[in-house]
Amino acid sequence: MPAAAGTINSETKFVLDHFSVPVPETITDGKGKKIVLVDHNEVGQAVENIKEATIFEVIDHHKIGDITTPNPIFFHNEPVGSTATIVSAMYDQYKVPISKEMAGVMMSAILSDTVLFKSPTCTPKDKDEVAKLAKITGEDFQQYGIAMLTAKSDISSKTAMEIVKGDYKHFDFAGTKAGVGQIEVMDLSVLVPRKKEILETMEKVRKDEGLSFVLIMLTDVMKEASDLLFVGSPVDKFEKAFEGKMENNAIYKKGVLSRKKQVIPPLEAAFK
Amino acid sequence: MPAAAGTINSETKFVLDHFSVPVPETITDGKGKKIVLVDHNEVGQAVENIKEATIFEVIDHHKIGDITTPNPIFFHNEPVGSTATIVSAMYDQYKVPISKEMAGVMMSAILSDTVLFKSPTCTPKDKDEVAKLAKITGEDFQQYGIAMLTAKSDISSKTAMEIVKGDYKHFDFAGTKAGVGQIEVMDLSVLVPRKKEILETMEKVRKDEGLSFVLIMLTDVMKEASDLLFVGSPVDKFEKAFEGKMENNAIYKKGVLSRKKQVIPPLEAAFK
Repeated sequence: MPAAAGTINSETKFVLDHFSVPVPETITDGKGKKIVLVDHNEVGQAVENIKEATIFEVIDHHKIGDITTPNPIFFHNEPVGSTATIVSAMYDQYKVPISKEMAGVMMSAILSDTVLFKSPTCTPKDKDEVAKLAKITGEDFQQYGIAMLTAKSDISSKTAMEIVKGDYKHFDFAGTKAGVGQIEVMDLSVLVPRKKEILETMEKVRKDEGLSFVLIMLTDVMKEASDLLFVGSPVDKFEKAFEGKMENNAIYKKGVLSRKKQVIPPLEAAFK
Repeated sequence: MPAAAGTINSETKFVLDHFSVPVPETITDGKGKKIVLVDHNEVGQAVENIKEATIFEVIDHHKIGDITTPNPIFFHNEPVGSTATIVSAMYDQYKVPISKEMAGVMMSAILSDTVLFKSPTCTPKDKDEVAKLAKITGEDFQQYGIAMLTAKSDISSKTAMEIVKGDYKHFDFAGTKAGVGQIEVMDLSVLVPRKKEILETMEKVRKDEGLSFVLIMLTDVMKEASDLLFVGSPVDKFEKAFEGKMENNAIYKKGVLSRKKQVIPPLEAAFK
Protein backbone atom coordinates (compact mmCIF):
# COMPACT_ATOMS: atom_id res chain seq x y z
CA MET A 1 0.00 0.00 0.00
CA PRO A 2 2.79 2.49 -0.79
CA ALA A 3 1.91 6.13 -1.36
CA ALA A 4 3.95 8.87 -2.97
CA ALA A 5 5.52 11.08 -0.31
CA GLY A 6 3.08 13.56 1.13
CA THR A 7 -0.03 12.15 -0.57
CA ILE A 8 -2.74 9.95 0.88
CA ASN A 9 -4.48 7.89 -1.77
CA SER A 10 -8.14 6.89 -1.68
CA GLU A 11 -7.33 3.41 -0.36
CA THR A 12 -5.15 4.70 2.50
CA LYS A 13 -7.81 7.28 3.35
CA PHE A 14 -10.45 4.52 3.48
CA VAL A 15 -8.29 2.41 5.84
CA LEU A 16 -7.35 5.27 8.19
CA ASP A 17 -10.95 6.52 8.35
CA HIS A 18 -12.34 3.01 8.91
CA PHE A 19 -10.06 2.31 11.88
CA SER A 20 -9.89 5.93 13.19
CA VAL A 21 -6.13 6.11 12.75
CA PRO A 22 -4.58 9.57 12.24
CA VAL A 23 -2.57 10.24 9.06
CA PRO A 24 1.05 9.39 9.93
CA GLU A 25 3.83 11.95 9.55
CA THR A 26 5.73 11.78 6.24
CA ILE A 27 9.53 11.97 6.31
CA THR A 28 11.22 13.02 3.07
CA ASP A 29 14.82 13.72 4.18
CA GLY A 30 16.94 11.13 6.04
CA LYS A 31 19.86 13.42 6.88
CA GLY A 32 20.98 12.85 10.47
CA LYS A 33 17.93 10.70 11.27
CA LYS A 34 17.73 7.19 12.73
CA ILE A 35 15.78 5.16 10.21
CA VAL A 36 14.05 1.77 10.08
CA LEU A 37 13.49 0.83 6.44
CA VAL A 38 10.14 -0.90 6.09
CA ASP A 39 8.90 -2.45 2.83
CA HIS A 40 12.01 -1.39 0.85
CA ASN A 41 15.77 -1.93 1.00
CA GLU A 42 17.15 0.02 -1.96
CA VAL A 43 18.84 3.40 -1.86
CA GLY A 44 16.84 4.56 -4.92
CA GLN A 45 13.53 3.89 -3.14
CA ALA A 46 14.43 5.42 0.22
CA VAL A 47 14.04 9.01 1.45
CA GLU A 48 16.50 11.64 0.24
CA ASN A 49 19.97 11.65 1.82
CA ILE A 50 19.56 8.08 3.08
CA LYS A 51 23.37 7.75 3.00
CA GLU A 52 23.55 10.43 5.73
CA ALA A 53 21.01 8.59 7.90
CA THR A 54 21.67 5.83 10.43
CA ILE A 55 19.80 2.75 9.22
CA PHE A 56 19.32 0.64 12.31
CA GLU A 57 16.75 -1.87 11.13
CA VAL A 58 15.28 -3.24 7.87
CA ILE A 59 12.02 -5.20 7.56
CA ASP A 60 11.03 -6.09 4.02
CA HIS A 61 9.73 -8.68 1.54
CA HIS A 62 11.45 -7.56 -1.70
CA LYS A 63 14.61 -8.69 -3.46
CA ILE A 64 17.84 -7.84 -1.64
CA GLY A 65 19.00 -4.41 -2.77
CA ASP A 66 21.99 -2.16 -2.39
CA ILE A 67 21.65 -0.99 1.22
CA THR A 68 24.88 -1.49 3.21
CA THR A 69 25.62 -0.55 6.83
CA PRO A 70 28.86 0.10 8.77
CA ASN A 71 27.69 -2.07 11.69
CA PRO A 72 25.63 -5.23 12.19
CA ILE A 73 21.90 -4.43 12.31
CA PHE A 74 18.64 -6.34 12.47
CA PHE A 75 17.68 -7.04 8.83
CA HIS A 76 14.75 -9.34 8.19
CA ASN A 77 13.57 -10.00 4.66
CA GLU A 78 11.09 -12.78 3.97
CA PRO A 79 9.39 -13.76 0.70
CA VAL A 80 5.79 -13.35 1.90
CA GLY A 81 3.02 -11.32 0.28
CA SER A 82 3.21 -8.30 2.57
CA THR A 83 5.74 -6.73 4.92
CA ALA A 84 2.80 -6.26 7.31
CA THR A 85 2.67 -10.08 7.60
CA ILE A 86 6.22 -10.05 8.98
CA VAL A 87 5.48 -7.16 11.35
CA SER A 88 2.28 -8.82 12.59
CA ALA A 89 4.22 -12.06 13.31
CA MET A 90 6.92 -10.04 15.12
CA TYR A 91 4.31 -8.67 17.54
CA ASP A 92 3.68 -12.25 18.66
CA GLN A 93 7.34 -13.22 18.65
CA TYR A 94 8.17 -10.33 21.01
CA LYS A 95 4.88 -10.83 22.93
CA VAL A 96 3.57 -7.32 22.23
CA PRO A 97 -0.25 -7.03 22.26
CA ILE A 98 -1.82 -5.73 19.02
CA SER A 99 -4.34 -2.88 19.31
CA LYS A 100 -7.53 -2.95 17.26
CA GLU A 101 -6.24 0.04 15.24
CA MET A 102 -2.87 -1.56 14.39
CA ALA A 103 -4.58 -4.87 13.60
CA GLY A 104 -6.86 -3.05 11.16
CA VAL A 105 -4.00 -1.24 9.46
CA MET A 106 -1.86 -4.39 9.12
CA MET A 107 -4.79 -6.51 7.92
CA SER A 108 -5.55 -3.84 5.29
CA ALA A 109 -1.94 -3.83 4.11
CA ILE A 110 -1.87 -7.61 3.70
CA LEU A 111 -5.23 -7.70 1.88
CA SER A 112 -4.08 -4.85 -0.37
CA ASP A 113 -0.63 -6.30 -1.15
CA THR A 114 -2.01 -9.78 -1.87
CA VAL A 115 -5.08 -8.41 -3.72
CA LEU A 116 -7.41 -10.36 -1.39
CA PHE A 117 -5.06 -13.41 -1.53
CA LYS A 118 -5.27 -13.55 -5.35
CA SER A 119 -1.70 -12.40 -6.03
CA PRO A 120 0.91 -15.10 -6.77
CA THR A 121 3.00 -13.50 -4.01
CA CYS A 122 0.45 -14.60 -1.38
CA THR A 123 1.65 -17.30 1.06
CA PRO A 124 -0.10 -19.34 3.78
CA LYS A 125 1.57 -17.07 6.36
CA ASP A 126 -0.23 -14.03 4.89
CA LYS A 127 -3.57 -15.81 5.24
CA ASP A 128 -2.77 -16.90 8.81
CA GLU A 129 -1.91 -13.36 9.86
CA VAL A 130 -5.08 -11.92 8.28
CA ALA A 131 -7.17 -14.53 10.14
CA LYS A 132 -5.45 -13.52 13.40
CA LEU A 133 -5.83 -9.77 12.76
CA ALA A 134 -9.45 -10.06 11.58
CA LYS A 135 -10.32 -11.66 14.92
CA ILE A 136 -8.82 -8.65 16.76
CA THR A 137 -10.67 -6.13 14.57
CA GLY A 138 -13.95 -8.07 14.62
CA GLU A 139 -14.25 -7.59 10.84
CA ASP A 140 -15.27 -10.01 8.10
CA PHE A 141 -12.04 -9.61 6.14
CA GLN A 142 -13.56 -10.62 2.77
CA GLN A 143 -16.31 -8.00 2.98
CA TYR A 144 -13.91 -5.41 4.35
CA GLY A 145 -11.30 -6.17 1.68
CA ILE A 146 -13.76 -5.73 -1.18
CA ALA A 147 -14.92 -2.40 0.29
CA MET A 148 -11.28 -1.30 0.57
CA LEU A 149 -10.40 -2.29 -3.00
CA THR A 150 -13.54 -0.58 -4.25
CA ALA A 151 -12.43 2.64 -2.53
CA LYS A 152 -8.99 2.14 -4.09
CA SER A 153 -10.35 1.65 -7.59
CA ASP A 154 -12.62 4.69 -7.47
CA ILE A 155 -10.62 6.66 -9.98
CA SER A 156 -13.37 9.13 -10.92
CA SER A 157 -11.94 11.81 -8.62
CA LYS A 158 -8.31 11.07 -9.53
CA THR A 159 -6.16 13.11 -11.88
CA ALA A 160 -4.09 11.18 -14.43
CA MET A 161 -1.00 12.15 -12.40
CA GLU A 162 -2.53 10.56 -9.28
CA ILE A 163 -3.22 7.39 -11.26
CA VAL A 164 0.38 7.24 -12.55
CA LYS A 165 2.13 8.22 -9.31
CA GLY A 166 -0.19 6.58 -6.73
CA ASP A 167 1.99 3.48 -6.36
CA TYR A 168 5.13 4.25 -8.31
CA LYS A 169 8.80 3.35 -7.84
CA HIS A 170 12.12 3.89 -9.57
CA PHE A 171 14.17 0.95 -10.83
CA ASP A 172 17.54 0.56 -12.49
CA PHE A 173 17.74 -2.26 -15.04
CA ALA A 174 21.46 -2.77 -15.72
CA GLY A 175 21.91 1.00 -16.06
CA THR A 176 18.57 1.74 -17.75
CA LYS A 177 16.58 3.99 -15.43
CA ALA A 178 12.83 3.49 -15.27
CA GLY A 179 9.68 4.20 -13.30
CA VAL A 180 7.21 1.35 -12.74
CA GLY A 181 3.78 1.97 -11.25
CA GLN A 182 0.55 0.13 -10.70
CA ILE A 183 -3.11 0.95 -10.28
CA GLU A 184 -5.59 -1.72 -9.28
CA VAL A 185 -9.25 -1.43 -10.20
CA MET A 186 -12.21 -3.75 -9.82
CA ASP A 187 -13.03 -3.34 -13.52
CA LEU A 188 -10.54 -2.19 -16.14
CA SER A 189 -13.23 -0.69 -18.38
CA VAL A 190 -13.36 2.44 -16.17
CA LEU A 191 -9.81 3.24 -17.28
CA VAL A 192 -10.29 2.81 -21.03
CA PRO A 193 -11.63 6.34 -21.68
CA ARG A 194 -8.64 7.81 -19.79
CA LYS A 195 -5.87 5.81 -21.45
CA LYS A 196 -4.68 8.61 -23.77
CA GLU A 197 -4.48 11.06 -20.89
CA ILE A 198 -2.59 8.50 -18.76
CA LEU A 199 -0.05 7.83 -21.55
CA GLU A 200 0.55 11.56 -22.00
CA THR A 201 1.11 11.92 -18.25
CA MET A 202 3.51 8.94 -18.26
CA GLU A 203 5.53 10.61 -21.03
CA LYS A 204 5.64 13.87 -19.04
CA VAL A 205 6.83 11.99 -15.92
CA ARG A 206 9.44 10.13 -18.00
CA LYS A 207 10.89 13.38 -19.37
CA ASP A 208 10.72 15.27 -16.07
CA GLU A 209 12.51 12.48 -14.23
CA GLY A 210 15.06 11.77 -16.97
CA LEU A 211 14.05 8.12 -17.37
CA SER A 212 14.39 5.73 -20.32
CA PHE A 213 10.88 4.40 -19.83
CA VAL A 214 7.80 4.47 -17.63
CA LEU A 215 5.64 1.38 -17.28
CA ILE A 216 2.25 1.47 -15.54
CA MET A 217 0.30 -1.69 -14.74
CA LEU A 218 -3.46 -1.19 -15.05
CA THR A 219 -4.55 -4.19 -13.02
CA ASP A 220 -8.03 -5.69 -13.15
CA VAL A 221 -8.44 -7.35 -9.76
CA MET A 222 -11.56 -9.32 -10.64
CA LYS A 223 -10.36 -10.56 -14.06
CA GLU A 224 -6.85 -11.12 -12.62
CA ALA A 225 -5.02 -9.47 -15.51
CA SER A 226 -3.00 -6.34 -16.23
CA ASP A 227 -2.76 -3.99 -19.16
CA LEU A 228 0.92 -2.96 -19.19
CA LEU A 229 1.29 0.59 -20.52
CA PHE A 230 4.74 1.57 -21.79
CA VAL A 231 6.26 4.89 -22.92
CA GLY A 232 9.91 5.46 -23.88
CA SER A 233 12.48 2.89 -24.93
CA PRO A 234 13.74 0.21 -25.48
CA VAL A 235 10.46 -1.26 -26.73
CA ASP A 236 12.20 -4.49 -27.80
CA LYS A 237 13.19 -5.27 -24.19
CA PHE A 238 9.60 -4.58 -23.06
CA GLU A 239 8.28 -6.96 -25.72
CA LYS A 240 10.92 -9.56 -24.85
CA ALA A 241 10.11 -9.36 -21.13
CA PHE A 242 6.38 -9.85 -21.65
CA GLU A 243 6.54 -12.10 -24.71
CA GLY A 244 4.16 -9.99 -26.77
CA LYS A 245 3.84 -7.32 -29.43
CA MET A 246 3.21 -3.79 -28.15
CA GLU A 247 0.01 -2.29 -29.57
CA ASN A 248 -1.12 1.26 -28.76
CA ASN A 249 1.67 1.42 -26.15
CA ALA A 250 0.35 -1.63 -24.31
CA ILE A 251 0.66 -5.37 -23.81
CA TYR A 252 -2.26 -7.12 -22.08
CA LYS A 253 -1.20 -9.99 -19.78
CA LYS A 254 -3.59 -12.45 -18.22
CA GLY A 255 -2.62 -13.67 -14.73
CA VAL A 256 -0.19 -10.79 -14.10
CA LEU A 257 -1.04 -9.04 -10.81
CA SER A 258 2.29 -8.54 -9.04
CA ARG A 259 4.89 -5.92 -9.96
CA LYS A 260 7.43 -7.51 -7.66
CA LYS A 261 7.02 -11.09 -8.81
CA GLN A 262 5.72 -10.84 -12.39
CA VAL A 263 6.94 -7.53 -13.81
CA ILE A 264 10.33 -6.63 -12.29
CA PRO A 265 11.99 -10.10 -12.68
CA PRO A 266 11.13 -10.50 -16.42
CA LEU A 267 12.36 -6.92 -17.06
CA GLU A 268 15.60 -7.70 -15.23
CA ALA A 269 16.02 -10.86 -17.28
CA ALA A 270 15.36 -8.98 -20.54
CA PHE A 271 18.04 -6.38 -19.71
CA LYS A 272 20.65 -8.99 -18.73
CA MET B 1 34.68 -20.17 14.19
CA PRO B 2 35.60 -19.61 10.52
CA ALA B 3 38.34 -21.69 8.92
CA ALA B 4 40.20 -21.13 5.69
CA ALA B 5 38.69 -23.25 2.90
CA GLY B 6 39.82 -26.85 3.09
CA THR B 7 41.58 -26.59 6.46
CA ILE B 8 40.34 -27.68 9.86
CA ASN B 9 41.93 -25.71 12.67
CA SER B 10 42.74 -27.10 16.11
CA GLU B 11 39.58 -25.61 17.63
CA THR B 12 37.26 -27.06 14.98
CA LYS B 13 39.01 -30.43 15.30
CA PHE B 14 38.46 -30.34 19.08
CA VAL B 15 34.73 -29.60 18.64
CA LEU B 16 34.10 -32.22 15.94
CA ASP B 17 36.04 -34.89 17.89
CA HIS B 18 34.28 -34.02 21.15
CA PHE B 19 30.78 -34.40 19.69
CA SER B 20 31.65 -37.16 17.16
CA VAL B 21 30.64 -35.04 14.18
CA PRO B 22 32.25 -35.81 10.79
CA VAL B 23 34.25 -33.07 9.04
CA PRO B 24 31.76 -31.29 6.77
CA GLU B 25 32.31 -31.02 3.02
CA THR B 26 33.98 -27.79 1.87
CA ILE B 27 32.56 -25.98 -1.15
CA THR B 28 34.90 -23.57 -2.95
CA ASP B 29 33.04 -22.81 -6.19
CA GLY B 30 29.46 -21.50 -6.26
CA LYS B 31 28.89 -21.78 -10.03
CA GLY B 32 25.43 -23.21 -10.74
CA LYS B 33 24.86 -24.11 -7.07
CA LYS B 34 21.98 -23.23 -4.76
CA ILE B 35 23.58 -21.48 -1.80
CA VAL B 36 22.56 -20.40 1.70
CA LEU B 37 25.05 -17.81 2.95
CA VAL B 38 25.68 -18.36 6.66
CA ASP B 39 27.83 -16.03 8.79
CA HIS B 40 28.68 -13.73 5.86
CA ASN B 41 26.83 -11.57 3.34
CA GLU B 42 29.58 -10.01 1.22
CA VAL B 43 30.64 -11.07 -2.26
CA GLY B 44 34.33 -10.78 -1.30
CA GLN B 45 33.92 -13.28 1.53
CA ALA B 46 31.82 -15.84 -0.33
CA VAL B 47 32.92 -18.83 -2.42
CA GLU B 48 34.29 -18.22 -5.90
CA ASN B 49 31.77 -17.44 -8.66
CA ILE B 50 29.08 -16.51 -6.13
CA LYS B 51 27.50 -14.29 -8.82
CA GLU B 52 26.79 -17.44 -10.84
CA ALA B 53 25.13 -19.15 -7.85
CA THR B 54 21.50 -18.90 -6.74
CA ILE B 55 21.51 -17.40 -3.25
CA PHE B 56 18.24 -18.47 -1.73
CA GLU B 57 18.81 -17.63 1.94
CA VAL B 58 21.13 -15.54 4.14
CA ILE B 59 21.59 -15.96 7.91
CA ASP B 60 24.19 -13.68 9.44
CA HIS B 61 25.19 -11.32 12.25
CA HIS B 62 27.59 -8.95 10.42
CA LYS B 63 27.13 -5.53 8.85
CA ILE B 64 24.94 -5.50 5.74
CA GLY B 65 27.17 -6.07 2.72
CA ASP B 66 26.90 -6.01 -1.05
CA ILE B 67 24.90 -9.16 -1.76
CA THR B 68 21.89 -8.48 -4.01
CA THR B 69 19.34 -10.94 -5.42
CA PRO B 70 16.98 -10.88 -8.42
CA ASN B 71 14.04 -12.16 -6.31
CA PRO B 72 12.80 -11.80 -2.73
CA ILE B 73 14.57 -14.28 -0.42
CA PHE B 74 14.71 -15.03 3.28
CA PHE B 75 17.48 -12.80 4.68
CA HIS B 76 17.87 -12.65 8.44
CA ASN B 77 20.67 -10.61 9.99
CA GLU B 78 20.67 -9.91 13.71
CA PRO B 79 23.30 -8.13 15.84
CA VAL B 80 23.97 -11.01 18.25
CA GLY B 81 27.34 -12.52 19.15
CA SER B 82 27.13 -15.58 16.91
CA THR B 83 25.19 -16.67 13.83
CA ALA B 84 24.77 -20.01 15.64
CA THR B 85 22.58 -18.16 18.17
CA ILE B 86 20.18 -17.22 15.35
CA VAL B 87 20.20 -20.75 13.91
CA SER B 88 19.62 -22.29 17.35
CA ALA B 89 16.62 -19.97 17.91
CA MET B 90 15.27 -20.85 14.44
CA TYR B 91 15.18 -24.55 15.39
CA ASP B 92 12.67 -23.61 18.11
CA GLN B 93 10.76 -21.17 15.94
CA TYR B 94 10.17 -23.87 13.32
CA LYS B 95 9.73 -26.55 16.02
CA VAL B 96 12.62 -28.73 14.80
CA PRO B 97 14.23 -30.88 17.53
CA ILE B 98 17.98 -30.31 18.09
CA SER B 99 20.23 -33.38 18.16
CA LYS B 100 22.98 -33.65 20.77
CA GLU B 101 25.59 -33.32 18.00
CA MET B 102 24.09 -30.15 16.50
CA ALA B 103 23.59 -28.69 19.99
CA GLY B 104 27.29 -29.29 20.70
CA VAL B 105 28.44 -27.70 17.46
CA MET B 106 26.20 -24.64 17.87
CA MET B 107 27.11 -24.20 21.55
CA SER B 108 30.80 -24.34 20.57
CA ALA B 109 30.31 -21.72 17.87
CA ILE B 110 28.58 -19.31 20.29
CA LEU B 111 31.21 -19.83 23.02
CA SER B 112 33.98 -19.34 20.46
CA ASP B 113 32.48 -16.25 18.79
CA THR B 114 31.70 -14.56 22.13
CA VAL B 115 35.01 -15.72 23.71
CA LEU B 116 33.09 -17.35 26.59
CA PHE B 117 30.69 -14.35 26.77
CA LYS B 118 33.58 -11.89 27.26
CA SER B 119 33.35 -10.24 23.85
CA PRO B 120 31.47 -6.91 23.64
CA THR B 121 29.44 -8.52 20.84
CA CYS B 122 27.84 -10.94 23.33
CA THR B 123 24.10 -10.41 23.99
CA PRO B 124 21.64 -11.96 26.49
CA LYS B 125 20.24 -14.04 23.60
CA ASP B 126 23.66 -15.70 23.09
CA LYS B 127 23.72 -16.68 26.77
CA ASP B 128 20.15 -17.98 26.64
CA GLU B 129 20.88 -20.18 23.64
CA VAL B 130 24.07 -21.58 25.22
CA ALA B 131 22.09 -22.44 28.39
CA LYS B 132 19.49 -24.22 26.23
CA LEU B 133 22.11 -26.08 24.15
CA ALA B 134 24.24 -27.03 27.17
CA LYS B 135 21.19 -28.77 28.67
CA ILE B 136 20.82 -30.85 25.48
CA THR B 137 24.52 -31.79 25.39
CA GLY B 138 24.71 -32.43 29.15
CA GLU B 139 27.96 -30.39 29.28
CA ASP B 140 29.13 -27.80 31.81
CA PHE B 141 29.59 -25.07 29.20
CA GLN B 142 32.17 -23.10 31.21
CA GLN B 143 34.47 -26.11 31.62
CA TYR B 144 33.88 -27.20 28.05
CA GLY B 145 34.49 -23.68 26.71
CA ILE B 146 37.82 -23.35 28.49
CA ALA B 147 38.93 -26.74 27.14
CA MET B 148 37.92 -25.65 23.63
CA LEU B 149 39.74 -22.33 23.82
CA THR B 150 42.80 -24.09 25.21
CA ALA B 151 42.79 -26.40 22.18
CA LYS B 152 42.38 -23.33 19.98
CA SER B 153 45.27 -21.48 21.54
CA ASP B 154 47.67 -24.42 21.32
CA ILE B 155 49.87 -22.84 18.69
CA SER B 156 52.94 -24.99 19.28
CA SER B 157 52.10 -27.23 16.33
CA LYS B 158 50.99 -24.37 14.07
CA THR B 159 53.02 -22.85 11.26
CA ALA B 160 53.14 -19.05 11.06
CA MET B 161 50.94 -19.31 7.95
CA GLU B 162 48.33 -21.26 9.92
CA ILE B 163 48.41 -18.57 12.62
CA VAL B 164 47.92 -15.79 10.06
CA LYS B 165 45.30 -17.55 7.89
CA GLY B 166 43.40 -19.52 10.56
CA ASP B 167 40.63 -16.90 10.86
CA TYR B 168 41.30 -14.44 8.08
CA LYS B 169 39.05 -12.35 5.84
CA HIS B 170 39.38 -9.82 3.03
CA PHE B 171 37.97 -6.31 3.42
CA ASP B 172 37.72 -3.27 1.19
CA PHE B 173 38.08 0.05 3.00
CA ALA B 174 36.88 2.69 0.52
CA GLY B 175 38.97 1.05 -2.22
CA THR B 176 41.92 0.03 -0.03
CA LYS B 177 42.14 -3.76 -0.10
CA ALA B 178 43.20 -5.51 3.10
CA GLY B 179 43.31 -8.81 4.94
CA VAL B 180 42.32 -8.86 8.61
CA GLY B 181 42.85 -11.94 10.75
CA GLN B 182 42.68 -12.94 14.36
CA ILE B 183 44.21 -15.55 16.60
CA GLU B 184 42.97 -15.99 20.16
CA VAL B 185 45.24 -17.45 22.83
CA MET B 186 44.87 -17.95 26.57
CA ASP B 187 48.19 -16.18 27.16
CA LEU B 188 49.82 -13.83 24.68
CA SER B 189 53.34 -14.60 25.88
CA VAL B 190 53.36 -17.84 23.85
CA LEU B 191 53.26 -15.73 20.70
CA VAL B 192 56.06 -13.28 21.58
CA PRO B 193 58.94 -15.52 20.37
CA ARG B 194 57.14 -16.02 17.04
CA LYS B 195 56.28 -12.40 16.31
CA LYS B 196 59.06 -11.82 13.75
CA GLU B 197 58.11 -14.97 11.83
CA ILE B 198 54.42 -13.96 11.90
CA LEU B 199 55.19 -10.46 10.54
CA GLU B 200 57.28 -11.94 7.72
CA THR B 201 54.42 -14.28 6.83
CA MET B 202 51.94 -11.39 6.90
CA GLU B 203 54.14 -9.46 4.45
CA LYS B 204 54.32 -12.52 2.17
CA VAL B 205 50.51 -12.91 2.26
CA ARG B 206 50.08 -9.18 1.59
CA LYS B 207 52.30 -9.33 -1.52
CA ASP B 208 50.87 -12.63 -2.79
CA GLU B 209 47.29 -11.35 -2.50
CA GLY B 210 48.02 -7.85 -3.83
CA LEU B 211 46.76 -6.08 -0.69
CA SER B 212 47.57 -2.66 0.75
CA PHE B 213 47.87 -4.04 4.26
CA VAL B 214 47.44 -7.10 6.45
CA LEU B 215 46.35 -6.72 10.07
CA ILE B 216 46.40 -9.65 12.49
CA MET B 217 44.88 -9.43 15.96
CA LEU B 218 46.82 -11.43 18.54
CA THR B 219 44.11 -11.66 21.18
CA ASP B 220 44.76 -12.54 24.81
CA VAL B 221 41.46 -14.03 25.98
CA MET B 222 42.30 -13.97 29.68
CA LYS B 223 43.75 -10.45 29.77
CA GLU B 224 41.01 -9.26 27.36
CA ALA B 225 43.37 -7.35 25.08
CA SER B 226 44.80 -7.57 21.56
CA ASP B 227 48.17 -6.83 20.04
CA LEU B 228 47.31 -5.49 16.58
CA LEU B 229 50.07 -6.42 14.09
CA PHE B 230 50.20 -4.36 10.89
CA VAL B 231 52.24 -4.67 7.67
CA GLY B 232 51.86 -2.49 4.58
CA SER B 233 50.31 0.93 4.29
CA PRO B 234 48.80 3.44 5.08
CA VAL B 235 50.25 3.37 8.61
CA ASP B 236 48.67 6.77 9.43
CA LYS B 237 45.15 5.36 8.95
CA PHE B 238 46.03 2.40 11.18
CA GLU B 239 47.31 4.76 13.88
CA LYS B 240 44.25 7.01 13.47
CA ALA B 241 41.86 4.07 13.74
CA PHE B 242 43.42 2.75 16.94
CA GLU B 243 44.48 6.08 18.45
CA GLY B 244 48.06 5.00 19.05
CA LYS B 245 51.61 5.11 17.75
CA MET B 246 52.76 1.98 15.88
CA GLU B 247 55.86 0.43 17.45
CA ASN B 248 57.57 -2.65 15.98
CA ASN B 249 54.60 -3.00 13.59
CA ALA B 250 52.11 -3.19 16.46
CA ILE B 251 49.61 -1.27 18.59
CA TYR B 252 48.51 -2.93 21.85
CA LYS B 253 44.85 -2.30 22.72
CA LYS B 254 43.29 -3.21 26.06
CA GLY B 255 39.63 -4.28 25.88
CA VAL B 256 39.76 -5.04 22.15
CA LEU B 257 38.52 -8.59 21.47
CA SER B 258 36.16 -8.31 18.50
CA ARG B 259 37.24 -7.84 14.90
CA LYS B 260 33.68 -7.15 13.84
CA LYS B 261 32.82 -4.62 16.51
CA GLN B 262 36.15 -3.09 17.54
CA VAL B 263 38.52 -3.38 14.58
CA ILE B 264 36.54 -3.11 11.32
CA PRO B 265 34.35 -0.09 12.31
CA PRO B 266 37.31 2.15 13.43
CA LEU B 267 39.21 1.20 10.24
CA GLU B 268 36.17 2.11 8.14
CA ALA B 269 35.87 5.42 9.98
CA ALA B 270 39.60 6.16 9.44
CA PHE B 271 39.30 5.55 5.70
CA LYS B 272 36.17 7.72 5.31
